[in-house]
Amino acid sequence: MEQRVSLITLGVADVRRARAFYERLGWHGQEVEETVFFQAGGIALVLWGRDKLARDCAITDGPASGFSGVTLAHNVRSEAEVDDLIATAERVGATVTRPPAETFYGGYAGVFTDLDGHAWEIAYNPGFPLAADGSITVPEFPAG
Amino acid sequence: MEQRVSLITLGVADVRRARAFYERLGWHGQEVEETVFFQAGGIALVLWGRDKLARDCAITDGPASGFSGVTLAHNVRSEAEVDDLIATAERVGATVTRPPAETFYGGYAGVFTDLDGHAWEIAYNPGFPLAADGSITVPEFPAG
Repeated sequence: MEQRVSLITLGVADVRRARAFYERLGWHGQEVEETVFFQAGGIALVLWGRDKLARDCAITDGPASGFSGVTLAHNVRSEAEVDDLIATAERVGATVTRPPAETFYGGYAGVFTDLDGHAWEIAYNPGFPLAADGSITVPEFPAG
Repeated sequence: MEQRVSLITLGVADVRRARAFYERLGWHGQEVEETVFFQAGGIALVLWGRDKLARDCAITDGPASGFSGVTLAHNVRSEAEVDDLIATAERVGATVTRPPAETFYGGYAGVFTDLDGHAWEIAYNPGFPLAADGSITVPEFPAG
């Protein structure tokens, strides 16, 4: 298995509402058959009805637990960008679960959940090089 | 907010066991402070204790519902690769929830869940160009 991810699909209650949230954050998507695709660097972030997604995976969906067990991170280039983006997210309807603050790994980050409870950490992490095209590189740790 | 994702963190019950699963699939990670980082194209896939991840996000974790509401997809270049990868995943402990078959979008795909229930669709999708470096491009749909 090559070491890469092609798409991340977030199950949502209402595709239009979820799309509007991400577009208010500045993203632009395309909708086809009630599915929204956002090009996100070399991968795609997809919004699809949670019921359809579970059925498509042949997984029985129970009551949501409040925490999906998965988080996404979006790294930015400064502490000020963290503050700005968390404030913007809150303004367009996100729930800020952890206000921006210094982190244990020597960075600065905050966390919000989108309208369906999917968690995003917005992070300034000087230890993880962030290229001009937005790709990140995992550094060589002392004892890998 | 730039249209990109930096990291995907999967909450797991046992970091070593989860790392071993992904390494049996052919991935190579680095572990630091009980966290495993895999470079995956321009992003990182991270394994971290589910309890720590929830706490770090300041989200209360309830009982897992069986479906996280999030799926990852890994696109490959042929139907045969789908078959091979799903078979490999099953051999190293994954649960195949949907055996490989033709899909409604004109491709061929199967789905497995990893040891912690995180769902991966392994897909051959001729409609989504897959570059040599593994990045994908969302096509222009007729009515975006």
